[in-house]
Amino acid sequence: MLLQNSHVVAQQNQATANIPNEEIKFTADMYPHLKRNPNFKNLSQDDISYFQSILPSNALTIENDSNQDDLTPYNVDWLRIHRGKSKLVAKPKTTAQVSNIVKYCNEKKLAIVPQGGNTGLVGGGIPIFDEIIISTKNLNQIRAFDPISRAPDDWVIPSFEVGNKGTLICDSGCILEILDDYLAERGHMMPLDIGSKGSCHIGGNVATNAGGVRYVRYGSLHGSVLGLEVVLPDGTILDNLSTLRKDNTGYDIKQLFIGSEGTLGIITGVSISASRRHKTINLAVLGLNSFKSIQDAFITSKEMLTEILSAFEFWDAQSLKLVKTHLNQGAKFPLDEYPFYVLIETGGSNKDHDEEKLANFLETVMEKGIVENGIIAQDNTQMKSLWSIREGIPDACAKAGSAYFYDISIPIPVMYKIVEDVISRLKNAGLYGKPVMDVIGFGHVGDGNLHLAITAESYSPKIINLIESCIGEWTEKYKGSLSAEHGLGLMKAKILKNSKPKAMVDIMRQMKHILDPNGIMNPYKFFPYK
Amino acid sequence: MLLQNSHVVAQQNQATANIPNEEIKFTADMYPHLKRNPNFKNLSQDDISYFQSILPSNALTIENDSNQDDLTPYNVDWLRIHRGKSKLVAKPKTTAQVSNIVKYCNEKKLAIVPQGGNTGLVGGGIPIFDEIIISTKNLNQIRAFDPISRAPDDWVIPSFEVGNKGTLICDSGCILEILDDYLAERGHMMPLDIGSKGSCHIGGNVATNAGGVRYVRYGSLHGSVLGLEVVLPDGTILDNLSTLRKDNTGYDIKQLFIGSEGTLGIITGVSISASRRHKTINLAVLGLNSFKSIQDAFITSKEMLTEILSAFEFWDAQSLKLVKTHLNQGAKFPLDEYPFYVLIETGGSNKDHDEEKLANFLETVMEKGIVENGIIAQDNTQMKSLWSIREGIPDACAKAGSAYFYDISIPIPVMYKIVEDVISRLKNAGLYGKPVMDVIGFGHVGDGNLHLAITAESYSPKIINLIESCIGEWTEKYKGSLSAEHGLGLMKAKILKNSKPKAMVDIMRQMKHILDPNGIMNPYKFFPYK
Repeated sequence: MLLQNSHVVAQQNQATANIPNEEIKFTADMYPHLKRNPNFKNLSQDDISYFQSILPSNALTIENDSNQDDLTPYNVDWLRIHRGKSKLVAKPKTTAQVSNIVKYCNEKKLAIVPQGGNTGLVGGGIPIFDEIIISTKNLNQIRAFDPISRAPDDWVIPSFEVGNKGTLICDSGCILEILDDYLAERGHMMPLDIGSKGSCHIGGNVATNAGGVRYVRYGSLHGSVLGLEVVLPDGTILDNLSTLRKDNTGYDIKQLFIGSEGTLGIITGVSISASRRHKTINLAVLGLNSFKSIQDAFITSKEMLTEILSAFEFWDAQSLKLVKTHLNQGAKFPLDEYPFYVLIETGGSNKDHDEEKLANFLETVMEKGIVENGIIAQDNTQMKSLWSIREGIPDACAKAGSAYFYDISIPIPVMYKIVEDVISRLKNAGLYGKPVMDVIGFGHVGDGNLHLAITAESYSPKIINLIESCIGEWTEKYKGSLSAEHGLGLMKAKILKNSKPKAMVDIMRQMKHILDPNGIMNPYKFFPYK
Repeated sequence: MLLQNSHVVAQQNQATANIPNEEIKFTADMYPHLKRNPNFKNLSQDDISYFQSILPSNALTIENDSNQDDLTPYNVDWLRIHRGKSKLVAKPKTTAQVSNIVKYCNEKKLAIVPQGGNTGLVGGGIPIFDEIIISTKNLNQIRAFDPISRAPDDWVIPSFEVGNKGTLICDSGCILEILDDYLAERGHMMPLDIGSKGSCHIGGNVATNAGGVRYVRYGSLHGSVLGLEVVLPDGTILDNLSTLRKDNTGYDIKQLFIGSEGTLGIITGVSISASRRHKTINLAVLGLNSFKSIQDAFITSKEMLTEILSAFEFWDAQSLKLVKTHLNQGAKFPLDEYPFYVLIETGGSNKDHDEEKLANFLETVMEKGIVENGIIAQDNTQMKSLWSIREGIPDACAKAGSAYFYDISIPIPVMYKIVEDVISRLKNAGLYGKPVMDVIGFGHVGDGNLHLAITAESYSPKIINLIESCIGEWTEKYKGSLSAEHGLGLMKAKILKNSKPKAMVDIMRQMKHILDPNGIMNPYKFFPYK
């Protein structure tokens, strides 16, 4: 699910991995309205000496004449769109170290950017100017896991690990896939799964309230995160690593940090609910004639697959064409050409029951003419192959030309109307066909989350303006959101003012002010616009 | 699930319904440390005239010489433990009216208590002194429902009601059961179910973050509430009635109000996720020899019933004995005597599959000797009868004598150890047998939520102190919570200081201060202790 969610030239996605570092523009030059806050201190030799006194040398990367490339992986985002000018990266191994660094920075008014796996899509995790980067990469220990498992025969009053709650406590820098693999060995699973799982950090997932393909079943991190440990902007360690499913003693303060994108503190520990892993997984891919049929198929799946439905994704014919043209996996797609495709995944505890439910579902939707054709994956290899087609769409766009990606939350019936309207407006403006080549829609039907991508011969402000005004009208009319799952960060900060009532934005600003009166924590993000 | 969750004389539960109003102590006299805040204005004739100018006469109840009984249902809580001295109840019908009242009160520094169905268990919804009561009872309109249903054949771009999101928007004073019945007719359900559903308001549920018997499957309101409309303490209407499943544009401010018990504002509208109703429901009741066996049965149910498990409740032999002795429904219990009982409910989409899963589960746990005996309810009547035994336990306690109720969140293996320890300490203190008669444990196994009740000949501070110190030690040792699902309100406010880290309580106080600088909103609750 690694998508850019605003106007970004596609070459900067896959292809740009080869752009020499020095050719990536400094972010500060791209956003001329952003000025370095003069209240922030410049890093001095004294500051460096202090950090050297509290951290081992391998936990610090400090710019000097010969090592500028060492800072690049932290100063440049993985999409290679943004480039900051930080001169110091701290990689603490303990919460106490994080606290010491932050406390010092707050006293000296040194600005900070917290950084996880640097897989963000909106420029929220990279510095703009010379902010100090605090990377969570060395905060990588699993602290405790409490499976739902049979109590030992010599059962006595238990330690944490046999509390039967199905909960994991870990450092915030643990990589999502490593956590999921760890849980898989123990019969459990993480409640979220996103394309960047091989490098994203759980702390970053929580800080950005990440969505992904398991969301339709397991819901938001606001429900599955049970507790957090956070270093506040003044260095205070907020220890709330509860594993209780229920606790009604006071305001649920941890919720504030979920989705705050590092602007209110640095998450150092996470306690999260980890369900039992499905015993049996099935996957079907369907060919359909209209987006109305997709809706009917979705409704039928809610009726017939209800409790075992784990994913309901769609893409259109043009998406598949791009994958077939630009990626090897396209050749393996088993269905003929249809205007739309749907991928359904089920997960349950009884193989026979799940297979019967899925077969009944398929029979029903085909008999009723909702679905033209459908197949069930025969083995794990075919499942992976089908997922790779869905997940390959952004890469295929990137290879096709300059691509623009958007991430929209909108009522399901409206989802594809937006794609059609963008095409129609591009045609009216004489831009369709050339320079615009493809306009495609795909995404998470069950969550009303559309990913819209446009490929073109080149990047053009005219195209961007046309698309943005079109999407803006639709989300405003249907109370949608211009960032369903990717956050505000740097690139989308401008939409905050118009997407939320003023009273709400005012409360957000007040929260920020009481927790971070010096504004040192991830500045220039979220609130740069008055 | 209507439990008192702290030391309360049982006659005050059921039996006390007949206590004459004048015999119920004024709360201010019971809590002598609480002093009326002298900054609050006394209600004047001018104030009354203002309220009369903005509200119709049937939306106001104002104390005069002849109508003091009219105010009693608002001044006295349903448990008939607490009694306030409010002289004015406002029952606005619109959010604008709520806003006007609150704005005026804030300007004049008139204190306010928001009140829903007055079914709270910790004295959070009643006045202590002369606070003005704002009741949500006339805010009772369902605003919109968007089912997951087939799109009409003449499908065009839809209105809200055919967005296929499965979401309900309603006024905060809607009664939970009325909402659930409304949804039942449309094939959906509310994500929560509690014993007081016949009179509690959805706004009160959200304000207290209510739990209940569907929690094990549908989780917390922090996950299922999609948006809120709140009148802030300065009268501002915060309109955030989003129905989007995903929206990552800014801090999730609505989370602050979930569980804030009316101390940060008055919830006037709720947008909530409403799942499809189960097509088929099954219920089993089991007899077991030990709490370890309950755990093994729970783990096996997570393995074999996984996606259809809707409730996993337990009670002990003494609980059943009380029900059999004091309530009619006890006679209908179908199992012989065992030390423990478990009630399991499943809900799914396929009758045959669910029945097979439940039968396999029962066979397994009986073959393995985990469960001694078990039966599956044969029809709806037997299901209701079995539920009524579980739900009758608190009533039975109340009829047995003076009863003390507690509500504890704790790791599952420890749940019943607390009950055993309380018995042991009472024995050592020479209090068991007489004056204490019964010590029983029951509750929501799946959520690690124990309800502990003690019946005794009379109310005694000695017993209370012994129980509270015992429970306090267990919850401290196992990082539990002394309020799993009932909130702090008035009665539990004292535990806040010790149950959360100081840094967290400090943030709570700051949140309260920025939203309610005059402290008019539900004073004396939550933060009375420095």
